[in-house]
Amino acid sequence: MGFQDGLAEAARTIEDHLRHVLSDLGGLPVVQAMGYAAAGGKRLRGYLVLEGARIHGIAPAQAIWPACAIEAIHAYSLVHDDLPCMDDDDMRRGMPTVHRKWDEATAVLAGDALQTLGFELVACPDCHPDAVVRADLALSLARAAGARGMVLGQALDMAAEQADTPLSLDQITALQAGKTGALFGWSAEAGARMARADIAPLTGYARALGLAFQIADDILDVEGDAAQMGKAVGKDAGRGKATFVSLLGMDGAKRRAESLVTEACDCLSVYGSEAGNLQDAARFVISRRT
Amino acid sequence: MGFQDGLAEAARTIEDHLRHVLSDLGGLPVVQAMGYAAAGGKRLRGYLVLEGARIHGIAPAQAIWPACAIEAIHAYSLVHDDLPCMDDDDMRRGMPTVHRKWDEATAVLAGDALQTLGFELVACPDCHPDAVVRADLALSLARAAGARGMVLGQALDMAAEQADTPLSLDQITALQAGKTGALFGWSAEAGARMARADIAPLTGYARALGLAFQIADDILDVEGDAAQMGKAVGKDAGRGKATFVSLLGMDGAKRRAESLVTEACDCLSVYGSEAGNLQDAARFVISRRT
Repeated sequence: MGFQDGLAEAARTIEDHLRHVLSDLGGLPVVQAMGYAAAGGKRLRGYLVLEGARIHGIAPAQAIWPACAIEAIHAYSLVHDDLPCMDDDDMRRGMPTVHRKWDEATAVLAGDALQTLGFELVACPDCHPDAVVRADLALSLARAAGARGMVLGQALDMAAEQADTPLSLDQITALQAGKTGALFGWSAEAGARMARADIAPLTGYARALGLAFQIADDILDVEGDAAQMGKAVGKDAGRGKATFVSLLGMDGAKRRAESLVTEACDCLSVYGSEAGNLQDAARFVISRRT
Repeated sequence: MGFQDGLAEAARTIEDHLRHVLSDLGGLPVVQAMGYAAAGGKRLRGYLVLEGARIHGIAPAQAIWPACAIEAIHAYSLVHDDLPCMDDDDMRRGMPTVHRKWDEATAVLAGDALQTLGFELVACPDCHPDAVVRADLALSLARAAGARGMVLGQALDMAAEQADTPLSLDQITALQAGKTGALFGWSAEAGARMARADIAPLTGYARALGLAFQIADDILDVEGDAAQMGKAVGKDAGRGKATFVSLLGMDGAKRRAESLVTEACDCLSVYGSEAGNLQDAARFVISRRT
């Protein structure tokens, strides 16, 4: 099975499991909004969890729990990011954002509950029989998602928007390491945590992959097609925001992304051919058109 | 030491520990806002954790972690509840709400990060050496805070505001059980969970105490003094919302609150005189003026 087929199959599995989990929560608008927000998307983070788990011999029936957890956390961050007081986006994945389809209060609450759900999914006994693993997954997820990870990146991003001078390359790299890198890191490491194995190779892989992903995002913001991407493009340049493209130039950004992909793949050499799919995933993040 | 002194001392201990934890996160506005939002308040939930832990022989140095966790979760819920798209409150605990002091984006993010922090605090090894306990605390906290607990109650509350007919007594009781009851329940049970003891007596205690607390809130919304409470009063009656007072009458509401306090105290008989402070806490929730 090629990478794209594997990713699509993982996305279906994750989608089904999330739908099953959410069906347990009743039919209130907030729960509907949670399901709506958690549907669709590339499921790249969930795929990293499933692949990282597979190469460590973890059963898919267990790996699906952290895979859904990280997608719930990712979905929460998108719902809140899209709010009028944040990025004020009307479209996401080609559909109206949650606050446009329902209202802002529903979007705030649905995002809140998706975050909570993420922690519930890793802490529940179905995720792993060993409580040491469940507690470790919950703790590392909190560190990745909170004010020393993703929220730190978002806060740095907000501070940058209000600052007079654009960010330097080091600053934007630090911002990205939190904003998107932290969840990628957790995703790639989760399988090793479930096997109580060394996470270091996957930490290095994810660091390079996350940065390549963000550079690709900046490239897509310039070269991408809004209809294909299902969201607005050209927003960063329009706001005079520093991006990897504005700092490195388009060619420089593309070269940097490619060398990061090589770096990401090299980190996985310890796993041999088992890591082929994760290497394909790294190549995918800079070739994607959405 | 009387109950009020004990509560004040617990509040100081919790305050200090939260300040210490947050000092680790840097000085960005979002982190400042987290500290601002997590400061002050009665700390009743944290007190329940500390007392529930004490009667189970858990060291204060461990109990402080779930006590701070529940206060972080409670603070997150207040910051998001106060947002313009939710209750649109300008004042909280006598101070401007987070979105008034900073802005809405900071309030959304600070609330998000406070929720994450709550899970970090119970999942970290300092909280308890036994991972079974840490995973159990994280899972039960997620169930109490999420779409089958607190967020469910908030969602029912939102649905009620949009409905044509006011809620019945059963409906408002179910709403409250989620909205405020779930976190009270977790707080009271946490110590028993840390000792891997039976949580049932504390579950019953917290169910009655939470309901008494909400009835007292509805009474204060009618009889309370805005200056003393540090927030707006008379909001529910002004919106024609069903409350325990509108449904039971003022005298009926007061009688119901008193019988719930008796019920709460009776649930603790198994702990003998050790549970005196928790019984005082139950009496406090219906006698408080703020």
